[in-house]
Amino acid sequence: MEGKTGEKGLVLVLTGKGKGKSSSAFGMVMRCLGHGMRVGIVQFIKGAWETGEAKFLRRFPEEVEIKTLGEGFSWETQDRARDVAAAERAWAEARRMLADPRYDFVLLDEINVALRYEQIPLDPVLEALAARPPMQHAVLTGRNAPERLVELADLVTDMTLVKHPFRSGVKAQKGLEF
Amino acid sequence: MEGKTGEKGLVLVLTGKGKGKSSSAFGMVMRCLGHGMRVGIVQFIKGAWETGEAKFLRRFPEEVEIKTLGEGFSWETQDRARDVAAAERAWAEARRMLADPRYDFVLLDEINVALRYEQIPLDPVLEALAARPPMQHAVLTGRNAPERLVELADLVTDMTLVKHPFRSGVKAQKGLEF
Repeated sequence: MEGKTGEKGLVLVLTGKGKGKSSSAFGMVMRCLGHGMRVGIVQFIKGAWETGEAKFLRRFPEEVEIKTLGEGFSWETQDRARDVAAAERAWAEARRMLADPRYDFVLLDEINVALRYEQIPLDPVLEALAARPPMQHAVLTGRNAPERLVELADLVTDMTLVKHPFRSGVKAQKGLEF
Repeated sequence: MEGKTGEKGLVLVLTGKGKGKSSSAFGMVMRCLGHGMRVGIVQFIKGAWETGEAKFLRRFPEEVEIKTLGEGFSWETQDRARDVAAAERAWAEARRMLADPRYDFVLLDEINVALRYEQIPLDPVLEALAARPPMQHAVLTGRNAPERLVELADLVTDMTLVKHPFRSGVKAQKGLEF
């Protein structure tokens, strides 16, 4: 199947401290929609508030399935049992999508954060990625991607923070950050 | 206007060799659409072929104006006069958008490449960014962002290449790269 002009499903990891991880994944979702591909999305952290991307994608229920199962950031809720339960529910949806060839593109948004805080174990994630349909693309975002996930991935970008306005007192902006 | 919770239009620069510069900008476009914001896009390099993002965004002519004026990559066409003329046309559209407060978000996709190859001069770009409407966001993408643009920007991410499948013989994939 592979070769110099090979087509196959890829595993992409978007990590690092800079801005652009989730937004890059959502830009790829837009490209997929332009090509008539079917998309599945699980948001592991976001969900406590309605993001612009979720609001927009709900206009296309035939083309995009989006599950926002997160409970916000764990350092805000301080309720580990609730965070773990939410991450497990999110992972159950993700595993279903990764096993289903009808999804051309599966986005696991901020899953790296759930892995980092050990809300879900890494091994089942690596196994599900390895066993997924051969033409399906999977994109995993969030800071601190685990090393074994980076090893498994086909493409990895580290969004490196050069300059960020939060540091100079500007708050998160509608359209840019959410 | 500014302060710890200040809202203002930001200049974002997405640069570096890794994947995710343009796709991140298009993810922000999706967020803007979710919030009912009006978007202007100029693609400086792309345009020779129809991308997934352009195909998709043409569905929303009231919300998004997208100009694809590029002639492809200059190292492919080998026709500098044609490249310069295309970049100048693209810049004329960009300058119009940067002067118009009806655009909440202006994306100058791959403009850094046009600047790098000196197809358009840098000074008018910096001037137009500095003089734009105060609530307008402007996003500039492409490798090798000029240093003076990085200085002017509020937010800069360097998409750092960790691993890329083109190096192992996998071609650009629909939905991911275009």
